[in-house]
Amino acid sequence: MPTHNFTPDHYHNTIGSHPPVLHIAPGDTVITTTVDAWGMDDTEKKVTDGPNPMTGPFYIEGAEVGDTLVVHIDRLTPNRITGWGRPGLAQNVVDPAAVPALPSRDLTVYWDVDTAARTATLRQPIGAKLGKFPLSINPMIGCFGVAPADGQAISTATSAEHGGNMDYNGFVEGVTVYFPVFQSGALFHLGDGHALQGDGEMSGTGVEISFEVQFTVELLKGVKSGWPRGENAEYIFTTGNARPLDQCVQNATTEMLAWLQQRCGLSAAEANLLMGFTVEYEVGNMFDPAYTMICKIPKRYLPE
Amino acid sequence: MPTHNFTPDHYHNTIGSHPPVLHIAPGDTVITTTVDAWGMDDTEKKVTDGPNPMTGPFYIEGAEVGDTLVVHIDRLTPNRITGWGRPGLAQNVVDPAAVPALPSRDLTVYWDVDTAARTATLRQPIGAKLGKFPLSINPMIGCFGVAPADGQAISTATSAEHGGNMDYNGFVEGVTVYFPVFQSGALFHLGDGHALQGDGEMSGTGVEISFEVQFTVELLKGVKSGWPRGENAEYIFTTGNARPLDQCVQNATTEMLAWLQQRCGLSAAEANLLMGFTVEYEVGNMFDPAYTMICKIPKRYLPE
Amino acid sequence: MPTHNFTPDHYHNTIGSHPPVLHIAPGDTVITTTVDAWGMDDTEKKVTDGPNPMTGPFYIEGAEVGDTLVVHIDRLTPNRITGWGRPGLAQNVVDPAAVPALPSRDLTVYWDVDTAARTATLRQPIGAKLGKFPLSINPMIGCFGVAPADGQAISTATSAEHGGNMDYNGFVEGVTVYFPVFQSGALFHLGDGHALQGDGEMSGTGVEISFEVQFTVELLKGVKSGWPRGENAEYIFTTGNARPLDQCVQNATTEMLAWLQQRCGLSAAEANLLMGFTVEYEVGNMFDPAYTMICKIPKRYLPE
Amino acid sequence: MPTHNFTPDHYHNTIGSHPPVLHIAPGDTVITTTVDAWGMDDTEKKVTDGPNPMTGPFYIEGAEVGDTLVVHIDRLTPNRITGWGRPGLAQNVVDPAAVPALPSRDLTVYWDVDTAARTATLRQPIGAKLGKFPLSINPMIGCFGVAPADGQAISTATSAEHGGNMDYNGFVEGVTVYFPVFQSGALFHLGDGHALQGDGEMSGTGVEISFEVQFTVELLKGVKSGWPRGENAEYIFTTGNARPLDQCVQNATTEMLAWLQQRCGLSAAEANLLMGFTVEYEVGNMFDPAYTMICKIPKRYLPE
Repeated sequence: MPTHNFTPDHYHNTIGSHPPVLHIAPGDTVITTTVDAWGMDDTEKKVTDGPNPMTGPFYIEGAEVGDTLVVHIDRLTPNRITGWGRPGLAQNVVDPAAVPALPSRDLTVYWDVDTAARTATLRQPIGAKLGKFPLSINPMIGCFGVAPADGQAISTATSAEHGGNMDYNGFVEGVTVYFPVFQSGALFHLGDGHALQGDGEMSGTGVEISFEVQFTVELLKGVKSGWPRGENAEYIFTTGNARPLDQCVQNATTEMLAWLQQRCGLSAAEANLLMGFTVEYEVGNMFDPAYTMICKIPKRYLPE
Repeated sequence: MPTHNFTPDHYHNTIGSHPPVLHIAPGDTVITTTVDAWGMDDTEKKVTDGPNPMTGPFYIEGAEVGDTLVVHIDRLTPNRITGWGRPGLAQNVVDPAAVPALPSRDLTVYWDVDTAARTATLRQPIGAKLGKFPLSINPMIGCFGVAPADGQAISTATSAEHGGNMDYNGFVEGVTVYFPVFQSGALFHLGDGHALQGDGEMSGTGVEISFEVQFTVELLKGVKSGWPRGENAEYIFTTGNARPLDQCVQNATTEMLAWLQQRCGLSAAEANLLMGFTVEYEVGNMFDPAYTMICKIPKRYLPE
Repeated sequence: MPTHNFTPDHYHNTIGSHPPVLHIAPGDTVITTTVDAWGMDDTEKKVTDGPNPMTGPFYIEGAEVGDTLVVHIDRLTPNRITGWGRPGLAQNVVDPAAVPALPSRDLTVYWDVDTAARTATLRQPIGAKLGKFPLSINPMIGCFGVAPADGQAISTATSAEHGGNMDYNGFVEGVTVYFPVFQSGALFHLGDGHALQGDGEMSGTGVEISFEVQFTVELLKGVKSGWPRGENAEYIFTTGNARPLDQCVQNATTEMLAWLQQRCGLSAAEANLLMGFTVEYEVGNMFDPAYTMICKIPKRYLPE
Repeated sequence: MPTHNFTPDHYHNTIGSHPPVLHIAPGDTVITTTVDAWGMDDTEKKVTDGPNPMTGPFYIEGAEVGDTLVVHIDRLTPNRITGWGRPGLAQNVVDPAAVPALPSRDLTVYWDVDTAARTATLRQPIGAKLGKFPLSINPMIGCFGVAPADGQAISTATSAEHGGNMDYNGFVEGVTVYFPVFQSGALFHLGDGHALQGDGEMSGTGVEISFEVQFTVELLKGVKSGWPRGENAEYIFTTGNARPLDQCVQNATTEMLAWLQQRCGLSAAEANLLMGFTVEYEVGNMFDPAYTMICKIPKRYLPE
């Protein structure tokens, strides 16, 4: 299958029915780059404006409304050594009475990212207790998705059924993601790489950085999905993007109920039983206009 | 330190300032039993009414308002072989449009619980795909806590700052739990054992069963806490109990910010930074009148 | 029918199954007094502690679980000339980013309440634009209700199916309120008078003041209700007390659907139709631990 | 000032930076038509697809980012005699346990709308109690707004800072609405007329109908607003569009705090005081993806 090397020369701040930058076929692989959430590239030069500039869209031949687009995240490599992020938690994630004691939202900390050692360390410690605060990196895609329905162009600050700014730290190398197709060609966009991120993106940032990305697409013709789904070695999972978190859980849980019946041939009763006793949840983000929750089922419980 | 063997002869459906069944001192260990959520004991006889009948309360000598009660969960052993649970998801955890397709709330499935093999299997399969659906048990306490402030007696169906029906599947053997003391003697109650439970208690039940329980108490004099906290080998964690889940997250996050400063001497800025990049969340329950979220920090990131 | 003059000598900070202060019969009228939210009486002396000390409970002869208690609010008269309230909005009612700019929660303003002229004016203006800021009074009961189910004692800071701290500015003289009975004798409590209050009690206070109150009780034997209901000259209404406001609306709307069928003999389809095109909503409070929404149907649309 | 008669020949299902259909100047009046939510025109012919097809956009000369567009709703006249709506409440507005008892979402009722008599009556009664169920009409605009920021095109099913599908039954003839300008020319869209609607649009519909509309625009150069604002004879008001309703209230309340300071020169302290004791709230919609709450201040309290 062909591998396309694509170098972006423009970016989008919405995910929508923009002119495609490349036509690719199911089975094709793309190697490309993404800039960071502020539009800074691998040379730390600002080449476009935020929020979350998207590389793409890529037009997948044969994708039609009602299909499901499969995206294998083959490789995610930070392609520079500087990451940045906010040191203070966001105002919406603490008790309202605790807001005045939060650090300023204007502060930024910089991280030295060593891709070989797979570590990020603070360039400038902010206190003696944590010092350079070395953390392991876990490169992830913050924002990706397909053109939404009805001709919408949805800000890359938020997320919905089409994907978008889900900021889930499980969208890492090796994961397969499934997006419902709402427009011919699907029109896949991606960007907003994080070298690492806490659950919930509680400060509104991870370690923000530019990436070299490799991904491979496939197409499930006639397979309908309602929300982004995913799969790794241990789990299948669904996402719900909304507010409040309760509704994210409702969306993701309902999508998983449907998927279990569709994928494994479970009856509704068995899908309920399986979920009730084995389901797991994770918080994607609780910062963006739409929050994200992840509903997971361990693959070891799925019937053959 | 003394070990008390206590056999309950009555139970409470609220957590409140009830007459204590036993006075114990910090350092003491208690071995006792709990009935299941419907009030069925180890012989499967209904000895009291639901919801979630509590064993206790235990009066801890020296506990005063503003202290923190420490409870080590030493051992949790299902003391009968039959567990039960609901096969269908709850109506509040799926999209409103998906409610009519849920299984009836009146259905119950029974589980054979083998404590030696640490498994639970369906007594009666509900379909061919899952069959007897063998699962590993992970015994946990669904509902426990201390008498709340202001003379309240709070239903064991729900939870708040005092603990209560948090239904978090991380409250297992080996965990240490910290409760804020709101009344002299703390007045510790416990019950509602589950042999296992999915995240969120999405069907409103785990595998409900009676327990033999052993716990040891300690007291942190003058150490103030706002919400239940906990600790296991890998994590420290806080709980938030409210609706919607967003508010649970706010409560638990704010409590963790405070604890990190109180316990580790971190500045507010460092506590924010530590949380923003390393925090993890889990869903306790999304079924009860108050939902529960867990905010976790890996111990490996805590400064000495 | 007898009129009872009752002078309280103690108060409760929870609504629960406390020993009754008076036994009364359906049809009886009670004239009594309430202290303000801080426990200050008609002489501005603090006679008990907050939050929201309750007068009562009153035991209504013949009231049993499953009945509905009827309370006519005959008269609400502020019985002193000083009211107080907070000048700043609460932290939970504005955007999280706007919290730091709010006035301090420790500030209090005092109001001169003229019951004859039916006005309240600021004792001390806080600025030139509003000056003494004269407002019309609209005396209302902030907190009242009956003993809840399962032996609970629920803080007067909050509300639930039993009523409680609903802080709805429509609970005024002339209104009839219906409470579900959860305990024998119903055990009616009341207090927390406001000379006036904005929608939502957005500063966490109205013009807080002590009252002389006259009310008359009746009993609807065998008439089941689920949440507090009310009635004035123009509307019937239901209340929902929960978080978030969405759930209050769900509770109140569902209760109204049931009441329309129960009271007017409407079919479910007609009750839906009536509500869909004529329903009105009001915000009770958005400050307390449980918020309150009011669902109203104009009486002119009710079939005879 | 010129009056433009504009007959639309195409419609939009998003509010976005679409090519303008007409350029108008501040002070100009437009007389035009709107089709109903399903795209049916004054002849009951389907001329375009839903959801909520918009007439426009109208480009207002001189409008730039950071200005506020003023729209006077001069006249709203249903231009046909048939309206339609759903008889059953939506699944998200009742308790989850009450969903299965709701009427089918596929049902539609038709209304005879008499613009002269200002009444709507059911063409076909659904039961004996309500019969033809005559209601007074109160024509309102369900969906209108300006092109949003960042090149977004937002579905007319929902609403945000730019306006959109707010479904507030107070957007009637005689009201002045203020929209923040996010794009040059503002790009004003409108449609989705209702002959009448209950609070909250709880069935997801009002009496849906096509309109003849007359509106006049003005421009407030350099006056910044954050959310749609409005004004009628008695009130100034702000809107908040989000989920849950709590966040709508936060948005609308914060916007009103800002407006009171901007418009009346109140200090922050006085704006808080004024709001805390006199604010009123209404539910716009609780059906659409974003809900809408209205925050109102009676004009009689505003200082000159």
